[in-house]
Amino acid sequence: MHKDGLPAELHDITNGPPLVFGHLKSSKSKKTLLCYSHYDVQPPEPIEEWTHGGPWSGALVDNIIYGRGATDNKGGLLAFNKAAKAFLKVRGEVPLNLKFFYEGEEEIGSVHLGPWVEKNKKLIEADGMHCLDGSVDSYAKVPEVELGLKSVLFVELIAKGGKKDIHSLNFPLVPSPPWDLIHALGTIMDRNRKILIKDWYEGLYVLGNEEIELINEKNSRINLDVLKKEFGINEFVLKREGAEAIKARTYEPTANIQGMISGYTGPGTKTIVPSEAKVRLDFRLLPHMNPQKCITKIKKHLVDHGFGHLEVKAFDSAEPPYKISIKEDISQAIIKAAIQVFGEKPVVNGVSAEGTILKHVWIPCVLTGFANSGANLHAPDENIHVENYIKG
Amino acid sequence: MHKDGLPAELHDITNGPPLVFGHLKSSKSKKTLLCYSHYDVQPPEPIEEWTHGGPWSGALVDNIIYGRGATDNKGGLLAFNKAAKAFLKVRGEVPLNLKFFYEGEEEIGSVHLGPWVEKNKKLIEADGMHCLDGSVDSYAKVPEVELGLKSVLFVELIAKGGKKDIHSLNFPLVPSPPWDLIHALGTIMDRNRKILIKDWYEGLYVLGNEEIELINEKNSRINLDVLKKEFGINEFVLKREGAEAIKARTYEPTANIQGMISGYTGPGTKTIVPSEAKVRLDFRLLPHMNPQKCITKIKKHLVDHGFGHLEVKAFDSAEPPYKISIKEDISQAIIKAAIQVFGEKPVVNGVSAEGTILKHVWIPCVLTGFANSGANLHAPDENIHVENYIKG
Repeated sequence: MHKDGLPAELHDITNGPPLVFGHLKSSKSKKTLLCYSHYDVQPPEPIEEWTHGGPWSGALVDNIIYGRGATDNKGGLLAFNKAAKAFLKVRGEVPLNLKFFYEGEEEIGSVHLGPWVEKNKKLIEADGMHCLDGSVDSYAKVPEVELGLKSVLFVELIAKGGKKDIHSLNFPLVPSPPWDLIHALGTIMDRNRKILIKDWYEGLYVLGNEEIELINEKNSRINLDVLKKEFGINEFVLKREGAEAIKARTYEPTANIQGMISGYTGPGTKTIVPSEAKVRLDFRLLPHMNPQKCITKIKKHLVDHGFGHLEVKAFDSAEPPYKISIKEDISQAIIKAAIQVFGEKPVVNGVSAEGTILKHVWIPCVLTGFANSGANLHAPDENIHVENYIKG
Repeated sequence: MHKDGLPAELHDITNGPPLVFGHLKSSKSKKTLLCYSHYDVQPPEPIEEWTHGGPWSGALVDNIIYGRGATDNKGGLLAFNKAAKAFLKVRGEVPLNLKFFYEGEEEIGSVHLGPWVEKNKKLIEADGMHCLDGSVDSYAKVPEVELGLKSVLFVELIAKGGKKDIHSLNFPLVPSPPWDLIHALGTIMDRNRKILIKDWYEGLYVLGNEEIELINEKNSRINLDVLKKEFGINEFVLKREGAEAIKARTYEPTANIQGMISGYTGPGTKTIVPSEAKVRLDFRLLPHMNPQKCITKIKKHLVDHGFGHLEVKAFDSAEPPYKISIKEDISQAIIKAAIQVFGEKPVVNGVSAEGTILKHVWIPCVLTGFANSGANLHAPDENIHVENYIKG
């Protein structure tokens, strides 16, 4: 960054890799933009599946750069820096104050970032936060602009039975961990995807005209059949279509099962009552839903329904749910910039952005990006199209 | 068998190993006993866990014979033969007609036996069938006498979603195979172990005074706390105790889950909607429940409850459920013999015996045996106590 004429210093993060922070001031504007990115990447394995010189080669082939981090998120980080450098070189200064904020643990949930942010609230104050960790909409071919974030609450439920698997002739006498989980889960969500935990939707974000308009606009611009084809399904669940489907995807609190396991799962049969059953869920929360309160509600629900004996492991992600308005300055600025570069309006969404910061400091935050479809984020042959990179 | 002076000939079984059949006649009795055993065994692996010379050594150590089949069921087979030989040697003849029936596929469900039995009904007709493939009760230390058999219906349910795992942000749009199974299973059995499939208990065997007396007698002789300790549980399910627990174990049709699997089950979390979920159940059926009709009832139940899209793999075991009375001659004879040898009454149960034969020929059948506890049936170091072998 110093080579590019940008201010930057390392800040120690207790038990974590250092934070890169720099403040580039402008004489022309009182507005400050916090530029968030992360310099860490996902593990490159399986290495043997990379072509073009491997994950660290940075090979440029047919105007596509290959390498771990090309898109997520070293590409976005460099785009911030190079844009600032260009402004400095051509116009002498950037037309607003920039705070560079580059962390090193995003991929593992920014686990050590909180205390530093709490201590340095003043330092990072800004009028808007922008994160270049997003994608270009694969259908409309314009950037997606995300104006909010669902957060994730991970919950593992474990049922236990005998000290080991028991011959299933004894089923009438012994607890059945898989049945225990099935009956417990049956009280948690119904077949219409309604979560049955008491007060789960308490204070839920209510959509205004603004959001409804954005949903309808998005619906008029994208083709959901492409999404069905990508998923390999003929219709969406509950026969959702069009604006209803977009609304559900963006604004519905969910209780997804990531996986479950119990007993014998190999070929053939095994007449046992399993000694244990496990299920792991991710609950997506919307703005105004408090993760810690939700954990309490789940535990109380299980006790109230006679499942107090189940073991509950719950932890909320580092990111709180939030939502900002399209009317915020930062929202409007990003949309204008995208129109300027891509020639048409971006697709504006209501979900996703980085956010440990937002637990401590309220900064309206927008996430966007230029990851092409097929960018292989977190997978071998991660890449970025040079054209997209320049536009970004 | 010829060396022991017993008649025996090989009968070809289409696609299966031959059957050994011999008819030893008596001038003193018109009664005929069919002596059923099997000469096949379970695979001996893991070989390295066997001590005393390995699975085929037949090592005799401290009056215990070690070897695959020592108990299950070569031990029982030889006991039949040697008892007959002893009668021939000491008294000149056996006091009833014996039909030896030794098959070679019991351990894989007697899969090729049916057609031979169907063609040879006349040949194997008998007043009673006895099978020495059972155990000594591990608590009362006397043989268990089994007067009937629950049969097993294996059912696998498979739910499918997208063509591959899908990012869980899309949960509001895509089918969730694990939730699909959970909701389907919730309609199959309630928390009190009642099976909710229409007419499931149709024509169910009704207990008479005879069975209730046997349950009460068994309850007065065995200590169920030993069973709880063995299972590693503090109490039986639904707080069952004493005669109620024995009755449930013996006479309750069940819907046990052997195993289930879906999605990601490794450490940490993975925000996916799994593309598939599987569960495998064994339904134990009581006498008068028809396995084929039960499969039809399950499939209809799923369709009626909106789960017709689930894949159902169902097959009934080779053994039909049956039940005989303690008043049958064969029941009384076995009980008398056990009292003579063990000095007290055996524990009389209502379940289990070999039975492809019973699909084709009705012969009252009793299963008993002398397998000591710790006999390691189907496991390494299978063994039999010489004392038990002699008594048997």
